[in-house]
Amino acid sequence: MAVYTEVPEDALLAFVGAYDIGEVLSFKGIAEGVENTNYFLHTSAGSYILTLYEKRVREDDLPFFLGLMEHLSTRGIVCPLPVRDRAGRALSRLAGRPAMIATFLDGLSIRRPSARHCGALGTALAQLHEAGRDFGMRRENALSLPAWAPLYAQAHGRADEVSRGLSGRIEAALDALARDWPRDLPEGVIHADLFTDNVFFIGERVSGLIDFYFACNDRLAYDLAICLNAWCFEPDGSYNVTKGRALIAGYARARPLERAEIEALPVLARGAALRFLLTRLVDWLNVPPGALVRPKDPLEYDRKLAFHMGVARASDYGYDT
Amino acid sequence: MAVYTEVPEDALLAFVGAYDIGEVLSFKGIAEGVENTNYFLHTSAGSYILTLYEKRVREDDLPFFLGLMEHLSTRGIVCPLPVRDRAGRALSRLAGRPAMIATFLDGLSIRRPSARHCGALGTALAQLHEAGRDFGMRRENALSLPAWAPLYAQAHGRADEVSRGLSGRIEAALDALARDWPRDLPEGVIHADLFTDNVFFIGERVSGLIDFYFACNDRLAYDLAICLNAWCFEPDGSYNVTKGRALIAGYARARPLERAEIEALPVLARGAALRFLLTRLVDWLNVPPGALVRPKDPLEYDRKLAFHMGVARASDYGYDT
Repeated sequence: MAVYTEVPEDALLAFVGAYDIGEVLSFKGIAEGVENTNYFLHTSAGSYILTLYEKRVREDDLPFFLGLMEHLSTRGIVCPLPVRDRAGRALSRLAGRPAMIATFLDGLSIRRPSARHCGALGTALAQLHEAGRDFGMRRENALSLPAWAPLYAQAHGRADEVSRGLSGRIEAALDALARDWPRDLPEGVIHADLFTDNVFFIGERVSGLIDFYFACNDRLAYDLAICLNAWCFEPDGSYNVTKGRALIAGYARARPLERAEIEALPVLARGAALRFLLTRLVDWLNVPPGALVRPKDPLEYDRKLAFHMGVARASDYGYDT
Repeated sequence: MAVYTEVPEDALLAFVGAYDIGEVLSFKGIAEGVENTNYFLHTSAGSYILTLYEKRVREDDLPFFLGLMEHLSTRGIVCPLPVRDRAGRALSRLAGRPAMIATFLDGLSIRRPSARHCGALGTALAQLHEAGRDFGMRRENALSLPAWAPLYAQAHGRADEVSRGLSGRIEAALDALARDWPRDLPEGVIHADLFTDNVFFIGERVSGLIDFYFACNDRLAYDLAICLNAWCFEPDGSYNVTKGRALIAGYARARPLERAEIEALPVLARGAALRFLLTRLVDWLNVPPGALVRPKDPLEYDRKLAFHMGVARASDYGYDT
């Protein structure tokens, strides 16, 4: 949520000149995207987002992300569509960074979603999974089970500084997940970071999905578990089963869940909570001097993990048999 | 250049609902304006900027700033025009802050202006001064000569930490300015902060002026001196007389300078340099913990001040007799 890279105007004009999108009329850094720098770009041809990829995104992964957005767009998913320059390239360079121009999406991020928003999000997530089925590229999930113990190793000496007993809770979850993590579930392309700031609504209709820079191949139901974590807890930390029911039912309307996926939901939700707990914990303990972004609270996910550790059945999330 | 205040979507929709500007389609925090929080607001009726006034702007001053923008707009100056709600109010409240919706201006800020940009800026500045002549409200300049010694008092014990000898240079300038500051020059409404990020261009044409939150009544030629400081030095610290000549000539095309104004230009330029040196120095020494904005370098204005201390005549700035 910051502008990390400034773009001199002559470099901007030269860059945009390689595309068939008219004359630059406006260019403003926007507070969107934690990993990258995003600019609102208005030209005589329309509105766009110009993204500069900062060092947290691996350059080798960009063809997967851009190819995925292009694939999903052609399958009717509303997501940023990379614009190709006159030479046919979607990915270029600007101000020393890999850079992309994509279409601008209307809509608002909803910080406090209602059950109806959750239902619409569930359907949009399932549609994303269906549309990704025939995407030709693959990317492993760099933040799944094998990554969690090494992530924890970066933080474990200091975890208890953040909250008493946190290291014990993380270790217990790591052990349980190493044992229980499901293996034979339907896989495909998942978004893997579909938090409320990455979903746009107009009214109660999903108008766009953004920020595909964690997308990867993994268990589809794991994406649903990430959304249960991100969308169905109240600010006071309580789980809202009405929202969970709407999210799961919304999902199942567009892609019916298999029995094994339903049974795995509590374990997947624990894994999702642990993944965000660990990455937030590492960020929390490693705020660089002069950082322009405040780290997110890891303990929000400590509390969510504790909730999931006590859940035995998908029905506790609102799944109706 | 930061989003200080988040706006919940329900509060946003209720707020915008009081205006005749259609349905909200997009709302994004933008990195513009150091003192306030600005959002890009796109509705079915068009594009707007929504500004939340943070504590550095005195609420009592807002009617002056908003009234001035409205006045200048009706006189043909392209600046943000405050939009009135159905009750006729331009100033309202949102998320606990005074808030305003204004028209969106196209154009780009030019970080490295050419002499032609400087010429166009000079003319725009003079037109602003002419258009402000019949504005009915008054606001004293809170950052003029009487404010400089108290500002320095906040920093003087630590000035030499920032640069050896800085306190001596500031004291010499304060003494000289107290003696030399011109009294009987034409006065009117000045912008007082017309740096490159507050001027939009399309090509070499000025397409808009923004950020009137330092505007006040003062000597008109002082505004020109601020622009000489902000627009006519190169990144290496050298004064570019070609740009200065273009700026002054551009100004004089729309408002001829009086003899006394021309003669006062070196003193006014010293005062302008000292004003920005002092406010930057105080900010530099008082960065709050967790600040989202990096303070600007005060020593840039220490070097500019040193240059102006050696200037005896307006011709050294490029003024052609």
